Amino acid sequence: MNEYEPVDPNYEARIRSSFEKQGVMKTIGARLFKIAPGEVVIEFSYDPSLTQQHGYIHAGVVTTVVDSACGYAAYTLMPADSEVLSIEYKVNFMSPAKGEFFKSIGKVLRSGRTITVCSGNVVAVERGKEKVVATMLATMISVAK
Amino acid sequence: MNEYEPVDPNYEARIRSSFEKQGVMKTIGARLFKIAPGEVVIEFSYDPSLTQQHGYIHAGVVTTVVDSACGYAAYTLMPADSEVLSIEYKVNFMSPAKGEFFKSIGKVLRSGRTITVCSGNVVAVERGKEKVVATMLATMISVAK
Amino acid sequence: MNEYEPVDPNYEARIRSSFEKQGVMKTIGARLFKIAPGEVVIEFSYDPSLTQQHGYIHAGVVTTVVDSACGYAAYTLMPADSEVLSIEYKVNFMSPAKGEFFKSIGKVLRSGRTITVCSGNVVAVERGKEKVVATMLATMISVAK
Amino acid sequence: MNEYEPVDPNYEARIRSSFEKQGVMKTIGARLFKIAPGEVVIEFSYDPSLTQQHGYIHAGVVTTVVDSACGYAAYTLMPADSEVLSIEYKVNFMSPAKGEFFKSIGKVLRSGRTITVCSGNVVAVERGKEKVVATMLATMISVAK
Repeated sequence: MNEYEPVDPNYEARIRSSFEKQGVMKTIGARLFKIAPGEVVIEFSYDPSLTQQHGYIHAGVVTTVVDSACGYAAYTLMPADSEVLSIEYKVNFMSPAKGEFFKSIGKVLRSGRTITVCSGNVVAVERGKEKVVATMLATMISVAK
Repeated sequence: MNEYEPVDPNYEARIRSSFEKQGVMKTIGARLFKIAPGEVVIEFSYDPSLTQQHGYIHAGVVTTVVDSACGYAAYTLMPADSEVLSIEYKVNFMSPAKGEFFKSIGKVLRSGRTITVCSGNVVAVERGKEKVVATMLATMISVAK
Repeated sequence: MNEYEPVDPNYEARIRSSFEKQGVMKTIGARLFKIAPGEVVIEFSYDPSLTQQHGYIHAGVVTTVVDSACGYAAYTLMPADSEVLSIEYKVNFMSPAKGEFFKSIGKVLRSGRTITVCSGNVVAVERGKEKVVATMLATMISVAK
Repeated sequence: MNEYEPVDPNYEARIRSSFEKQGVMKTIGARLFKIAPGEVVIEFSYDPSLTQQHGYIHAGVVTTVVDSACGYAAYTLMPADSEVLSIEYKVNFMSPAKGEFFKSIGKVLRSGRTITVCSGNVVAVERGKEKVVATMLATMISVAK
């Protein structure tokens, strides 16, 4: 299925370097788990500094991490001299973001010269059980550096 | 225009108490600026711990604060024994979130018994000039406590 | 994967009857192709009466059919005395809706008592080749009849 | 507020010509009511050929007309040799689309060289009373002809 061919062979280094510059990823304690053509996975752990009023992870934090996963998934397929920006996204929250840690999976659905469409899922892991807590549909744009 | 009549006269205290429990609002340094029937404004300041790779505020952080503003705007009109949850939202990013501080304005567009539709705007303030950097359209649900 | 258990064994007749009442489905020439627990497929053919300015199917027509597919996918899992309504949806258009006929596939992602989240895809078929032209993420509500 | 300056003085003729080519607008019986820089209004009347199962206008028909209104609102500000395409949109349905006729108002929120963000509202008119039944947030793209 995932047969994307990156135009920049150095896409992984490019993404690691960009991720390092995202101050908010340090604040959340997020780490890059997987970088593949058209797919990026970012993980983070539960922390009380990331919660909403019921003690679960705030919808916006879930969104932040899966936005980065989707953006970088799109960025794997963009040229070396490009930047990636989120134009817009929509997220549905299916269950409270309750768990020990969370996997945010971003995938390219359609890669174009200017516009890339991505889908994302956030999976909560609790006592070894996985549950999808949110799903994203996002539009990314490639802009010249 | 904004002629909403809250069913719970204590809505303001209810929202302040809920806001205090949102760990992520402390992490972001966000503060409640306005609570009125059908409208809530939350402000936060620029901080390097909230940034994406170009040094601007991460789209997800912008989303986090305007999601809380929209959720609490909906919550002003909900009964005392209810909880508010975000079902879903969509955000368009119109300009980089660049500025000294940011106002997130959440407003109720349509208030129903179960479902409330809200719109949100995030305004960046830089050297006294204001610019809308993001706009949200969100669906909130009222659930029994 | 698709292991949904309908609470109403008569879900198929219920959906066929509702579909027959949708005047716009006759106008579009759409027909129910598949009804299964949590999944509904609706097909329609190209017709100049459904086009936008370049002669392709209008994005709104694509949306109309996949909205019905998603709504009925949700409706397969709802009780006999319920109605289904679209609260909101988002659609990304990935390619021009160009083809001889179109398959709109609606699937339930998460089924709740009140809220059901669905995803939809519209596939264009041209000379035997299939292409995804649009993808939907939708929120449906179950209301008492 | 609406101080957009079109780059193509012939924007109105360009939009009328494009609208005439949209076969689906004839099928719906929609007519262009207003064309101004950054704003387009399209009206249509109730007809049983446009309905969902309860006899109201189908959400997808509401979407079709407000998508055209938003697209043409964006198109008023685009150059003469461009085409406008919907990348994506999200619509919230606030009330059943019940009425004698309907006004779909599309407005530009932010106009860029490539990307234009629009908001749309659909107002139902019944016995002289107006009600907003749906609201759209849309992303349009300008492509060379």
